[in-house]
Amino acid sequence: MVMKRSNPGLPPSFPLRTRNTAGLSLQELAGHVAGARLEGDDPELRIQGVAPPAVARASDLALLSDPRYLEGLQSSGAGALLVRAGLEKKLDDPRPRLVVPDPHAAMRRILERLHPEKPWPSGIHPGASVDPDVTMGAGISVGPGAVVEAGAVLGDRVRVGALAVVGAGVRVGDDVILHPQVTLYPGVVLGDRVVIHSGARIGVDGFGFVFEEGEHMRIPHVGGCVLEDDVEVGANVCIDRGSVGETRIGAGTKIDNLVHLGHNVRVGARSIFTAQVGVAGSTTLGSGVVAGGQAGIAGHVKVGDGARIAGQAGIIGDVAPGETLMGFPARPQREFLRGVASVYKVPDLLRKVRELEARLAALEGE
Amino acid sequence: MVMKRSNPGLPPSFPLRTRNTAGLSLQELAGHVAGARLEGDDPELRIQGVAPPAVARASDLALLSDPRYLEGLQSSGAGALLVRAGLEKKLDDPRPRLVVPDPHAAMRRILERLHPEKPWPSGIHPGASVDPDVTMGAGISVGPGAVVEAGAVLGDRVRVGALAVVGAGVRVGDDVILHPQVTLYPGVVLGDRVVIHSGARIGVDGFGFVFEEGEHMRIPHVGGCVLEDDVEVGANVCIDRGSVGETRIGAGTKIDNLVHLGHNVRVGARSIFTAQVGVAGSTTLGSGVVAGGQAGIAGHVKVGDGARIAGQAGIIGDVAPGETLMGFPARPQREFLRGVASVYKVPDLLRKVRELEARLAALEGE
Amino acid sequence: MVMKRSNPGLPPSFPLRTRNTAGLSLQELAGHVAGARLEGDDPELRIQGVAPPAVARASDLALLSDPRYLEGLQSSGAGALLVRAGLEKKLDDPRPRLVVPDPHAAMRRILERLHPEKPWPSGIHPGASVDPDVTMGAGISVGPGAVVEAGAVLGDRVRVGALAVVGAGVRVGDDVILHPQVTLYPGVVLGDRVVIHSGARIGVDGFGFVFEEGEHMRIPHVGGCVLEDDVEVGANVCIDRGSVGETRIGAGTKIDNLVHLGHNVRVGARSIFTAQVGVAGSTTLGSGVVAGGQAGIAGHVKVGDGARIAGQAGIIGDVAPGETLMGFPARPQREFLRGVASVYKVPDLLRKVRELEARLAALEGE
Repeated sequence: MVMKRSNPGLPPSFPLRTRNTAGLSLQELAGHVAGARLEGDDPELRIQGVAPPAVARASDLALLSDPRYLEGLQSSGAGALLVRAGLEKKLDDPRPRLVVPDPHAAMRRILERLHPEKPWPSGIHPGASVDPDVTMGAGISVGPGAVVEAGAVLGDRVRVGALAVVGAGVRVGDDVILHPQVTLYPGVVLGDRVVIHSGARIGVDGFGFVFEEGEHMRIPHVGGCVLEDDVEVGANVCIDRGSVGETRIGAGTKIDNLVHLGHNVRVGARSIFTAQVGVAGSTTLGSGVVAGGQAGIAGHVKVGDGARIAGQAGIIGDVAPGETLMGFPARPQREFLRGVASVYKVPDLLRKVRELEARLAALEGE
Repeated sequence: MVMKRSNPGLPPSFPLRTRNTAGLSLQELAGHVAGARLEGDDPELRIQGVAPPAVARASDLALLSDPRYLEGLQSSGAGALLVRAGLEKKLDDPRPRLVVPDPHAAMRRILERLHPEKPWPSGIHPGASVDPDVTMGAGISVGPGAVVEAGAVLGDRVRVGALAVVGAGVRVGDDVILHPQVTLYPGVVLGDRVVIHSGARIGVDGFGFVFEEGEHMRIPHVGGCVLEDDVEVGANVCIDRGSVGETRIGAGTKIDNLVHLGHNVRVGARSIFTAQVGVAGSTTLGSGVVAGGQAGIAGHVKVGDGARIAGQAGIIGDVAPGETLMGFPARPQREFLRGVASVYKVPDLLRKVRELEARLAALEGE
Repeated sequence: MVMKRSNPGLPPSFPLRTRNTAGLSLQELAGHVAGARLEGDDPELRIQGVAPPAVARASDLALLSDPRYLEGLQSSGAGALLVRAGLEKKLDDPRPRLVVPDPHAAMRRILERLHPEKPWPSGIHPGASVDPDVTMGAGISVGPGAVVEAGAVLGDRVRVGALAVVGAGVRVGDDVILHPQVTLYPGVVLGDRVVIHSGARIGVDGFGFVFEEGEHMRIPHVGGCVLEDDVEVGANVCIDRGSVGETRIGAGTKIDNLVHLGHNVRVGARSIFTAQVGVAGSTTLGSGVVAGGQAGIAGHVKVGDGARIAGQAGIIGDVAPGETLMGFPARPQREFLRGVASVYKVPDLLRKVRELEARLAALEGE
C-alpha cells in the first residue's frame, strides 16, 4: 500500500545540491581549473561526475591524487581521469585526462559546476514560530517548526533549517545556513556565510560553578558568543558562551562534528578542529592552528599561531607558534615518538643491566 | 494546582515497552529459553520481572551471571533465580531457579515476554509536516512536529519520532525506528529494521576543505550515506556522507552514543562501536570489528575483520584481521601492556645504572 | 529590506538573564558578599557589570583573581576592582575596590544582582503538543513545538523549552529547566531544580546486545533513569536508562557537554564530570568525584568518594576514595608523571648502558 499526504508549501530544510544532468565537456571543465592541462583525443567527452576509480562510470572523471590509486585503474569504468601533475607519467592508460596541480582543488571547482546548489525558495513555513519582534533581511527562508525568538536580527538570504531555534536577541549575518535542529542560545552573534550543522548548540551556559555551603552553585553566564565570518560548525558541536567575557571563533575557522569549546575560549582565524576535539575554558588559540581528532586542550593555556596538535594529544601548558605536539602530556612530535619507541626497548634494557650487574660482581669478586 | 490540557490524538514519540502485569509462570518462561532447566518445587510461581539481586522483589527473577553476585543473594527479596549453569552448585538457597547456559541471552527472551512492546498506533500526527511528494508504506507513524521532505520513500511500519527530520529523497526500509529529534540529511538510505536514537545526525556534509587563496574552501559533498539492515545508531551520533563516493555501514553493525564516523568510511557487518569512538575519513573497517570507548582511528587506514581495538586506543596505521590493539600509537595489547609496565621500572633502572657506573669507575681506577 | 512577521504570544524558549541597567552602588554590592571589604573613596559609584580587566568599562568591576591579571590593569577602563584578598597589597592603583576572600563566589553573588533572571511567562505555547493525560503544576511554561506525552507529571514552575520532548510517563520535579531540543525518553524521573541543556538525551536505551545465531540481538532495556535534585546536564549529553536496574545520578552532580553515561551507571552526590567524559555501563561512582575532560571509565568498576581523575585518563579498575589518577591505564598521578618523565630519559640510558658494556668488556679483557 502506498499513500500520499498533502502539505503544500513545505520548503526543504536545507540546500540539497542538484546534478547537472547534461554534464560539461572535458574542455569546459579544464577552463574552470587554474593550471589544468587537457591530454588525450576527446576534448568534447561529456562528464557528469567525479568518482573514485573503483566505482567511476563512463560519464565520470576518476580522481587520481595518489600513486596507490593507480593499481585499481585498469578495471575502472571511468571515461576520463583527473590526475595530479607528475602522476600522469606513471600512467599507462589510453583515456583522456585532466592533469592538474592540486586534484582536490580541481575537484572542488568541477563539483561546483556538476552539482550546482539547489535553488532555495525563500519564505517562512506556516509551521514556524517567529516572534513579531524579529528583523529579517531579504530572501530569508525559515523551515517547518523553526523558532525565532524576540529581538533576533537575521541578514539577507539566511536559511533557518527545520526545527532550528534562534534565541532571543541573536544577530545573524548574511548568507548564513542553519541546518535542522540547531540551537542558538540567546544573544549569540554570527558573521556572514557562517554554516552550522544539525544539532550544534551555540552559546550554551558554560560549566562554571563555585563550591559554597557544601554545594556547587552556578555562576551566571552573561558573556557573549561570537562566530566570525565563514566559520563552519559540524553536527552536534557545543560552544559555550562567555562567563563575563566573550567566546569568539575567528573568521574562516572550521570545526568538525562533536567538538566542545568551553566558555571564554578564543580562536584565531582559519584554524581547524577535527572531530571530537575538546578545549576547556578560557584557553586562547591563535590563527591557523590545526587540532587532530579527539585532542584535548586544558583550560587557561595559550596555543600559538600555526601550532599543530596531533589526534588524541593532551595539551596541559602553553604551546609555541608552529610547534607540533603529540601524546599526553603532549611533547614535540619527534621527542614523543622517540620516547614511545624507547619504551619498548626497556624490557631488553632491564635484561642487559641485570647481566652487566652479574658480570661486574664477578669482576669485583676477583 | 493541577491543570490538564487537551490535545487528542497525540501518538507517543517512540515505542515504550509495557509490563505484562499477569506475568508468566517459571514453567512457561523455561519453555522460552533454549537449554533452560527448572529446579525447585514451585513451577507455577508467577514472575513479572528480572532484576539485580539487591532490588529484586518476590515477583522477580534475580539475575545471577557472575559469582560476585552470590554475596548479596541471601538478603535479596527475589522470588526465584536466573542462574548461569555451573553457578548453581555454589548456591545454598532454597528458591526455585532457572539454570541456563547464557543468562543474558535468557534475560533477553524473558524480558521480551514480560515487557512486550507497546502497540504502535499508525497515522500521521496533525502537527507533522509531510511533503505531498512522499511515498509511504503501510502502518507508518509520524510523530508531532516531524518533518518529511519531498521525494522521501518510507517502507512499511516505519516510525518517525517526534520532531525528527527526514530529508529530501531519503529512502527508508521496513520496520525502521527513528527516535525523536533525529536528522537524516537528504539522500540518506536506510535498510530494514534500522534503529536511530535521539539526536543522531546521518549523512552530514563531511569535513573536507581545500586551502585556496588563503582560505579553507569547502569541497561539495555529493556522495551517499547508506546504513544497511539491522544497523542501530546511538544518541547524538554523527555519520558523514561520502564526498564523491559513499559512506556505508554494514548490516547488523551497532553504534553507541556520541560516535563520529567521517566521510567515505566503510564498515563491514556486525561490527561494534562503543561510545565516543571516532573514525576519520576514508577508513575501511571489516566485519566483526570491536572498538572500545573513545578509541580513535585515523583516516585512510584499513582495519581487518575481527580486529579488537581497546578503549582510548589511537590507530594510525593498518590493522591486521583479528589483532587486538591498545594505546597510542596503538600496539598489540600484550606488547603495549609489557611496555607500560616497564615504564614504571625506569626510575629504578636509572638508579641502578648510576650505581653500576660508580662501581665500574672504581674498578677502572684500581 | 526589512520585513516583520507576526506570531503573538510566543514565549522565549529559555530564561535569558536581563541587565539591571540602573546598576548597584559599590556599597550595596559589598553588602551582598560575605567577608567583603570596600576600599577607596567612592562607595556610591554605580556598577553595572563584571568584566575581565582588558574589556572592562567605567561602569564595570574588573575581576582580579590571579596575579597575572595585574599586568593589564593599568590600561583597563574599569571603574572599580574586585580583588582577591592578599592581592590588593600588590596593587598600585587609585580605583576603589572590593576586597573579597573568593572572587568567583563574590562574582556569582554580584552577577545575580546585576543580571536578574528574566521573568518567565507561564503558559503553553499554541504550537506545543501536550497530551490530555498530563498532570501539570502551577506556573508551567511549555515552549513552541515542545511535545509532552501521555502520563507525564510536571511539577510547579517547570519550563519546557522549545521543541523539547518529554516522553510518556516521565516525572519532573519543581523548578526544572529543560532547554530547547532536549529529549527525555519515557519513564525518566527528574528531581527538583534539575537543569538540562539543549540536545541532551536522557534515558536512552542502553548499549546491550547478546550475540545469538550470528547476530547482535538487543536486550530490551526496561530499567529506570533518575536524576536527583539539583543535577545539571550539559548540551548534547547522553545518559542511558538501566537495563533491568536503574541509572541514577546523585543530587547536585554537575555534568558538562557531550558526556556519555552508560546503562546502570550510579553516581553519588556533588560529583563533577567535565566535557566529553565517558563512563561505561554498570560502573558506580561515589560522591564528590571529579573527572577531567575526555576521561574514560570502563564498565563494572567502582570509583570511591572524592576520587580525582585527570583529563584523558583511562580507568580500567577500581579506584580508592580520594585517589588522584592519570594516564592510560591510569596510575596515581605522581607515579604516572614520574613514569612519563623517565620515558624521555630512556634514549640516554640506552647510550649509557652501551658505553658501560664496552667499558666492562675492556676490563674483562684485561
